[in-house]
Amino acid sequence: MAAARRPGRLRGAPENFLDAGQIAAVQAGRRDFLKNAFALAAAGAATGAAAQQGDPAILELPEHSKALGQPVAARGYGEPSRFEKNLQRRESPGLTRVSGASVSFTPLQGLFGIITPSGLHFERHHQGWWDIDPTRHRLMVMGLVQQARVYTLDDLMRLPAVSRMHFIECGANTGMEWGNVAVPTVQYTHGMLSCCEFTGVLLSTLLDHCGVDRKRGKYVLAEGADGSSLTRTIAMERALDDVMVAWAMNGEMLRPENGYPLRLVAPGLQGVSWVKWLRRLKVGDEPFGTKDEVLHYVDLMPDGTLRQYTSIQECKSVITSPSGGQTLLDKGYYNVTGLAWSGRGRVKRVDVSFDGGRNWRTASLEGPLLAKCLARFNIGWNWDGSPAILQSRAIDETGYVQPKINQLRAVRGTRSIYHNNAIQSWKVDAGGEVTNAQVY
Amino acid sequence: MAAARRPGRLRGAPENFLDAGQIAAVQAGRRDFLKNAFALAAAGAATGAAAQQGDPAILELPEHSKALGQPVAARGYGEPSRFEKNLQRRESPGLTRVSGASVSFTPLQGLFGIITPSGLHFERHHQGWWDIDPTRHRLMVMGLVQQARVYTLDDLMRLPAVSRMHFIECGANTGMEWGNVAVPTVQYTHGMLSCCEFTGVLLSTLLDHCGVDRKRGKYVLAEGADGSSLTRTIAMERALDDVMVAWAMNGEMLRPENGYPLRLVAPGLQGVSWVKWLRRLKVGDEPFGTKDEVLHYVDLMPDGTLRQYTSIQECKSVITSPSGGQTLLDKGYYNVTGLAWSGRGRVKRVDVSFDGGRNWRTASLEGPLLAKCLARFNIGWNWDGSPAILQSRAIDETGYVQPKINQLRAVRGTRSIYHNNAIQSWKVDAGGEVTNAQVY
Repeated sequence: MAAARRPGRLRGAPENFLDAGQIAAVQAGRRDFLKNAFALAAAGAATGAAAQQGDPAILELPEHSKALGQPVAARGYGEPSRFEKNLQRRESPGLTRVSGASVSFTPLQGLFGIITPSGLHFERHHQGWWDIDPTRHRLMVMGLVQQARVYTLDDLMRLPAVSRMHFIECGANTGMEWGNVAVPTVQYTHGMLSCCEFTGVLLSTLLDHCGVDRKRGKYVLAEGADGSSLTRTIAMERALDDVMVAWAMNGEMLRPENGYPLRLVAPGLQGVSWVKWLRRLKVGDEPFGTKDEVLHYVDLMPDGTLRQYTSIQECKSVITSPSGGQTLLDKGYYNVTGLAWSGRGRVKRVDVSFDGGRNWRTASLEGPLLAKCLARFNIGWNWDGSPAILQSRAIDETGYVQPKINQLRAVRGTRSIYHNNAIQSWKVDAGGEVTNAQVY
Repeated sequence: MAAARRPGRLRGAPENFLDAGQIAAVQAGRRDFLKNAFALAAAGAATGAAAQQGDPAILELPEHSKALGQPVAARGYGEPSRFEKNLQRRESPGLTRVSGASVSFTPLQGLFGIITPSGLHFERHHQGWWDIDPTRHRLMVMGLVQQARVYTLDDLMRLPAVSRMHFIECGANTGMEWGNVAVPTVQYTHGMLSCCEFTGVLLSTLLDHCGVDRKRGKYVLAEGADGSSLTRTIAMERALDDVMVAWAMNGEMLRPENGYPLRLVAPGLQGVSWVKWLRRLKVGDEPFGTKDEVLHYVDLMPDGTLRQYTSIQECKSVITSPSGGQTLLDKGYYNVTGLAWSGRGRVKRVDVSFDGGRNWRTASLEGPLLAKCLARFNIGWNWDGSPAILQSRAIDETGYVQPKINQLRAVRGTRSIYHNNAIQSWKVDAGGEVTNAQVY
């Protein structure tokens, strides 16, 4: 009973909207609980405008249809319903020794569409986050430029602006699954993933404003103003393509945890390149070889070598509902939904299998379908009550097909941390319980 | 000094990021304040990795680059920076006698892109808002259907889902400007406007699930579970087109103020038709003639007749920055930005004038350009310091051109409340101050 009343929007205990009696009815195999609820309601006192019109299917007016509610602007800045408090970004306990240098994951199992609410955007900090005074923040641009400059936020916001929707995924997303099944839910397997509308100035505009040396300048270093002075090199070709210096996310100024007041937006590249609290850009003629790209964010290959400077997030997808930790309460029709993305452009197609990869059906893709942006897919499924393995497989506009985990392992082994874009399997047992599974 | 430090992101006092000294420098006509800041910084103690590389343009490392910040998941559900607290939705004082039956406006002057942060979505309630327990909420579908049904939220969420981005605009938006200039800022002239990604089930899917009588059923009544039992009629043609029964907004469940757990999304129609806390749908063979469409939401025409059942929000646009209440602190280049939309489809073009409508230039439109969705436009402007009148004029894919206020008045007079989609004028004086102006 308590479990059934927990907030959450998913079909299945403990996250569902049925009351204990309805759950019991479903679990007992009774399919008429809705009809019963209907009859009960019709028998109740019918009131209100609808009742006066003599309709049969009238439910009694609730209390809130008979009284004055809360005033407007009761909350100048709104927040979610009290019934949604359980949907939070969460740290994976024990993942790191210091929570300032850790990760909190986005609860993908409870989200819809492609926009990630800013309050649930995943976090990955190396030395914690700051709420920096924007009037004191400066951005330096230097190196192989005609005129090194220091910008205030006001200066930047007077330059030509663009707004674009892009996903951001930490290179380590799904990293814990390189070996065996490690975590139970999609929040922890894939939750270092978010997608927002960003507004800022194109890096190309900024570099041109400083008179970048386009012949000698081959790389751009970006440095954050956090305690780790996080620094990453970006190739000039990308820097001049679609990289932005952004101040806004989902319509408002960046959140402190996401780099307020300035961050780099590096579409298609792993999250670490999206430098937060951006304070410095330097143009150089070779990669800068910083700690954050030579010592960290490297993968140990089977032959003992280190895979460095991996940046692009390859095509990937995951079913977010139903997913690990949820329970299907009844047989019958379900809308199966998930997300697909590619660091190389648009998602072209998503296929879904309900039998562990033997048969595939093509899912519907919701619009807009944008480059280096999440795509939401939906597909109908009639669950007959027998065990099933659910998988999704994305294909991007380059023709790249999301691989199976054993195909990835054949090349990269099991000691990697980064760039695991394998097909995810969710196992549904006869009781409707959904768990994380690896299927080869 | 205090004014200059107020939160806000706009160029101009009191909302700017310059400190008092910089403002004084600009106001005194000194154009070298940035260069001075730069020289000062370079002369200061250069520290950190950048300094070691011998760059000239190095600012001293701030405190937050030398310490451990806040941990991840410090806030399971995040919120804006403490420096952005001033950006709130606000009630127009005295607009109505009861704040439960009033409006709070979205601060468009401080927003970016097309997505409205859910926490800043405008509010318009007739009897206040409620945070309804979703496990107890039901949706009835009745009338000219084969099988009247009562749905739980769980039932609805198992049906085929769609996700779409749409604007919502109250029919009364800009209504106070029918007569003379009434309010000073774009928050109050145009702030009953928001745009979100919605997820739900198409109304057509739901009606078909109940076996709607497509021959006799010509209209659908939607009723809310608020204290006013707000009810609106929607023509079947629209109901079967793109109307949704939505549970999610911007990736998460609807906010209580926006109809949690269910609202109608009626793309292109005025906000009142987007019934919140949706509890009942009834199919009929004629308009239902409810209080909310016959007595309210009607316009008094010059000939004394009432204009009823006006629904579609015609093509409209507004410059959001610079806009009333802001100040241009200096001559030179500005990115002028705003929003355009049409209830009939896509925005095709936005023109901007800087001389009160004598000359027009075409602005850039940011992607994606979606039907019945906001479009963000940007255009560069070199302000020479002389007075100017800024206007934007939108054109949609049907060829409809946003009218001037005197063109609208010639047809509708000055006693209307609703559907004022006239071109908005912002006057810039020689001191850079921007005010709301009407230009004929």
